[in-house]
Amino acid sequence: MTSPTPRDLTVTEVRLTPILVADPPLLNTQGVHQPYTPRLIIEVVTADGTVGLGETYGDTKYLDLAKPLADRLVGRRVGDLNALFAEADQVAVDDSQVSGQVDVGGLRGVQTADKLRLSVLSGFEVACLDALGKALGLPVHALLGGKVRDAVEYSAYLFYKWARHPEGVAAEQDDWGAAVDPAGIVEQARIFTQRYGFTSFKLKGGVFPPDEEIAAIRALAAAFPGHPLRLDPNGAWSVETSLKVAAELGDVLEYLEDPALGTPAMAEVAARMQEAARSASDKGGGGRRVGVPLATNMCVTTFAEIKEAFTTGAVQVVLSDHHYWGGLRNTQQLAAICRTFGVGVSMHSNTHLGISLAAMTHVAATVPNLHHACDSHYPWQSEDVLTERLTFEGGTVRVSDRPGLGVELDRDRLARLHQRWLDDDGSLRDRDDAAAMRIADPDWVTPTVPRW
Amino acid sequence: MTSPTPRDLTVTEVRLTPILVADPPLLNTQGVHQPYTPRLIIEVVTADGTVGLGETYGDTKYLDLAKPLADRLVGRRVGDLNALFAEADQVAVDDSQVSGQVDVGGLRGVQTADKLRLSVLSGFEVACLDALGKALGLPVHALLGGKVRDAVEYSAYLFYKWARHPEGVAAEQDDWGAAVDPAGIVEQARIFTQRYGFTSFKLKGGVFPPDEEIAAIRALAAAFPGHPLRLDPNGAWSVETSLKVAAELGDVLEYLEDPALGTPAMAEVAARMQEAARSASDKGGGGRRVGVPLATNMCVTTFAEIKEAFTTGAVQVVLSDHHYWGGLRNTQQLAAICRTFGVGVSMHSNTHLGISLAAMTHVAATVPNLHHACDSHYPWQSEDVLTERLTFEGGTVRVSDRPGLGVELDRDRLARLHQRWLDDDGSLRDRDDAAAMRIADPDWVTPTVPRW
Repeated sequence: MTSPTPRDLTVTEVRLTPILVADPPLLNTQGVHQPYTPRLIIEVVTADGTVGLGETYGDTKYLDLAKPLADRLVGRRVGDLNALFAEADQVAVDDSQVSGQVDVGGLRGVQTADKLRLSVLSGFEVACLDALGKALGLPVHALLGGKVRDAVEYSAYLFYKWARHPEGVAAEQDDWGAAVDPAGIVEQARIFTQRYGFTSFKLKGGVFPPDEEIAAIRALAAAFPGHPLRLDPNGAWSVETSLKVAAELGDVLEYLEDPALGTPAMAEVAARMQEAARSASDKGGGGRRVGVPLATNMCVTTFAEIKEAFTTGAVQVVLSDHHYWGGLRNTQQLAAICRTFGVGVSMHSNTHLGISLAAMTHVAATVPNLHHACDSHYPWQSEDVLTERLTFEGGTVRVSDRPGLGVELDRDRLARLHQRWLDDDGSLRDRDDAAAMRIADPDWVTPTVPRW
Repeated sequence: MTSPTPRDLTVTEVRLTPILVADPPLLNTQGVHQPYTPRLIIEVVTADGTVGLGETYGDTKYLDLAKPLADRLVGRRVGDLNALFAEADQVAVDDSQVSGQVDVGGLRGVQTADKLRLSVLSGFEVACLDALGKALGLPVHALLGGKVRDAVEYSAYLFYKWARHPEGVAAEQDDWGAAVDPAGIVEQARIFTQRYGFTSFKLKGGVFPPDEEIAAIRALAAAFPGHPLRLDPNGAWSVETSLKVAAELGDVLEYLEDPALGTPAMAEVAARMQEAARSASDKGGGGRRVGVPLATNMCVTTFAEIKEAFTTGAVQVVLSDHHYWGGLRNTQQLAAICRTFGVGVSMHSNTHLGISLAAMTHVAATVPNLHHACDSHYPWQSEDVLTERLTFEGGTVRVSDRPGLGVELDRDRLARLHQRWLDDDGSLRDRDDAAAMRIADPDWVTPTVPRW
């Protein structure tokens, strides 16, 4: 049989639509989520009329990079994915946009020009894959070598939260209620299981003193015995505190996520846990597990950070995130590196919508060594730009076999969320959890690390 | 525009055709190439009539694995590439087929069941990619994310060789003449440049005492000043000899390939070169380069071998080979790992035909961090199973943009080479360079390592 004449998949237009999406008052170590969070919706249009969808961070500095990258994409074919990286490298990054330090607002690890570029590129890569899949009649997972599972498991992403955003702030109302103590967290977890069937639980910590968060995890362990539990204080703890929490929760934690900030601190936590385990074993206590695997989405967020972390044994699980790793194909490469070095893989999430959840699900379906449920904020997002929301059943998202990502843009919804962005006076266009906290607590300053 | 209805790319048949291909009397440390070498040609046929081509090793143990893997492929879609690995894992490997030691015959590193499986799987993966590309109207490189270069550079693969195979052995005659001294090697290099335009040169060493091979490299450096040169004794040397050769040729070698056998020995060579460099620098001799990058296709041949080699600094360049790394997509993953750890990438070759050269060229075109010319035996092969041979121009192979690999099977040629395999009494169906050597020298035994 002869080969078909390929459709013309040259990119003729790239539409960039910044939006503001409702976000509940979720707490973390740096403050509280603002009532609306920025995202960028990317549409890549090809000569034959195919439209591919992508989504990434929508803060101003990402938008500033997205525009020149969009210009560079026009005239290229959507399948030229390897070439995207060289194109992105050509886009200048303003030094003022990257601190070289840990990103205070976004908890996304150290800011670098390369990571900023990759975080923008990833949205384009997903849009190109969606377009390519639609044009070829293939799901995105098939463009990634095919799924190895039919459904992807997600974890319940538990947050300390307030019932409402601070007084006087315009915001959508959510129906989750407050959760500021162990009982509140357990109740939230119950709602998660009832609504979505999740069986793994992750608690965003670093909000209250460690003993309170230890108590919350203990309450979860009592309420959901045997279920995988995780705690993530976003690097808020000292090495000593990290070791204390690990020792107290070692019997119930699947992993401890970024207890301390940065690879050297994480390596010290890991090494001292190992020492303690050896010592306990020497004393005949070898039967009890005293070490907890350390996971990260803060000290290993780029390929450049892998070597130090993997050679020092600082992390046992990397939480991949296609947004800042540079797309779905880079996520597969990250997983291959982890497999090669005996490091586990799970998946990180910032606030995101259905386009990204679909992308996460497609790539997760192709990674053989994904042995932990993925994180997703999606249940916290009451709004989306899709005609039909993705759903969790039994804690999983089914892998779509429809062409592309398998999702459809609702232009009315997109327009409404974009109008909100247009109407904003600029105060919400750049995520700032500390600014949101200062509305409730004018004296709030971003805590120095380690906080405890 | 709506998505097309995908063609039915379910595998309905897999044809396995073992062949014997003429091979000149090329010398290496273990003996001499036999007059014919076995290869396996794989045809994957899909429900819609698409035929994809693959090629891999054809020794009996590979054929034994290929049959059950072929059975497992029938009924799967050609795009289910990630699932191929789990299928291969299900194929039993006879312990007698894998020594756990360095493969005496094939110089392909340590033999393991996994590597044997991957070496077979790779031929199927290439055939599936060829079929998928043909069905979609896309070149294989586009299925790998797209080419980042339009032509792939290859090196001249120089061999010590005899003018003819031993007396009384049926063999095709080649027109290259003998090359058993520096002058012969330089003459061979000149023919390579005249015929193919190569500008990099690799000499297969480990054949003569190191001083003779040093002289050959010196002669090449004099005849082709400034051109990249490599020497590969296939692990035949001791650490001391490796250091001596590196010191003597440090000013002209692009890299030294597998001077000593195994990661610990390579790591020692690398460490002692570094020490020497530091010592020379301390003494004010810092201007002269005293270290030579070490390359390997023997101590890093599987993902399992990477960690030790990369954390001990044993190798600075990995010579990838899609045949034993498990295909083109694994080769991309290997390249990503190398990039992440600051290790270079080049490409290894055993005797192969045009299907594999096309596959090598497609994947090489997609690897951004390929900064060395690739090896290929192809110029030594006077026979092929294609309607049209691939050609080298200016030392490069152009990357095909035709659907699939861009090559076409010549069934008459395939049938002729298969008939040769059928007619063989079994003595050539398993490559054995030592056996071939014993025809010329009945007292020949495979040298123990280190040989010098």
